[in-house]
Amino acid sequence: MTKNTKVNAAILIIGNEILSGRTQDTNTSTLAIWFNSIGVKVGEVRVIPDIEKTIIESLNLLRSNYDYVFTTGGIGPTHDDITAESVSKTFGLKYEIHKEAYKILEAYYKPGEFNEGRQKMVWMPANANLILNPTSGAPGFNIENVFCLPGVPSILKSMLGGLTNNIIGGKPILSLTISLKTVESEIANALTKVQNDNQDVEIGSYPFFQAGKLGVSIVIRSEDQFKIDNCNSQILEFVNNKKIEIVNR
Amino acid sequence: MTKNTKVNAAILIIGNEILSGRTQDTNTSTLAIWFNSIGVKVGEVRVIPDIEKTIIESLNLLRSNYDYVFTTGGIGPTHDDITAESVSKTFGLKYEIHKEAYKILEAYYKPGEFNEGRQKMVWMPANANLILNPTSGAPGFNIENVFCLPGVPSILKSMLGGLTNNIIGGKPILSLTISLKTVESEIANALTKVQNDNQDVEIGSYPFFQAGKLGVSIVIRSEDQFKIDNCNSQILEFVNNKKIEIVNR
Repeated sequence: MTKNTKVNAAILIIGNEILSGRTQDTNTSTLAIWFNSIGVKVGEVRVIPDIEKTIIESLNLLRSNYDYVFTTGGIGPTHDDITAESVSKTFGLKYEIHKEAYKILEAYYKPGEFNEGRQKMVWMPANANLILNPTSGAPGFNIENVFCLPGVPSILKSMLGGLTNNIIGGKPILSLTISLKTVESEIANALTKVQNDNQDVEIGSYPFFQAGKLGVSIVIRSEDQFKIDNCNSQILEFVNNKKIEIVNR
Repeated sequence: MTKNTKVNAAILIIGNEILSGRTQDTNTSTLAIWFNSIGVKVGEVRVIPDIEKTIIESLNLLRSNYDYVFTTGGIGPTHDDITAESVSKTFGLKYEIHKEAYKILEAYYKPGEFNEGRQKMVWMPANANLILNPTSGAPGFNIENVFCLPGVPSILKSMLGGLTNNIIGGKPILSLTISLKTVESEIANALTKVQNDNQDVEIGSYPFFQAGKLGVSIVIRSEDQFKIDNCNSQILEFVNNKKIEIVNR
């Protein structure tokens, strides 16, 4: 599991609204699932406030520790949107009007509607690469290994498709889930043995309580389908021996 | 906004299932809202994998930077539950059977059901303070300013009530939301002026798209109701002048 053979990413969620509990973040899960599909493993997520110093320090740390850093939030037109300026300072780049972004938004809005507030959204780090926004016009941007996306989940989602070619992932991370009508303590020892016998496979155990059903989902994750199948057989063996029922979830 | 006058906390979400996107974290929002109510401001959230070294490093950093650190996840009976042992190592404490926790679970389960798997849940840092679990028996624990809770949202929620007296918060953080039928760019300049005139109040602007309605929620946060009311008046003034409709959300 060294960095040489795997591609990893960190997610930096920028926004007081998540820290106050007002807004439930869903972008982490959207991004993580998308990253899995292109062979990138999310190593860490941080949620930080709209404070320039914190944004810059977090970015500098994460961009040196991970292959990719994706930020969400703070690229709109209001005073609390400070991501673009903070990224400029992080990279020592001028914070200025991005001509291509200006043209895109000028064409996007009706004549007279591209007002001062909206023009704030074309201020970016100099020479940033744009990330196109098929939903609401205003692009995100990319500098080196840092990609900045908006916080609104539907808009963020719509921008990922255009990014797939910009990210060089490893092998897609495959996973298999086995859900059982049991409790964790019933399978803990047997599952530990399977994990010990398959140390390069990630095996997780997650209790669930759903519609009156109580159970455990075992999740096997690896880039190698053969290794997953092998773990699966070993798990099914103890499941059969213990006469535990497999359930659909 | 210095640490001397405010009480702050960090949340450390421990779990591969959040990083893989399989599970949508909801504990952050639960904890943040609870913290607000007892006058504690969440300064940072980190999501990290089930890796001992990462847990220890994160804990050491966060516990020195924040008044309180709450962890979620990794205290169940399976091989991927390594929070208790990692916390023991963080504080240089022995990882051992906690006698009180043992008694609680021995009484909780039917005779013969307190098996080896379940007994793992009473292994904790030596002399940990227990956090009682009214839902499923197995307690969380606390060492110094670090509080360890389970990852299952319904169980975590049920344990917070018993903790309120253990946390010494500041003044409760009050908030007021004004939702408008407008777009952010329409109010950006006027709102910036209000923020500049009220620098010790946190004013956030959040676009929403809901049931075909498009709008912006302005959130004012402070411990001081007078300051909130003052900002509110200034915002209502420009809202009236611009003839923007106020909407219920």
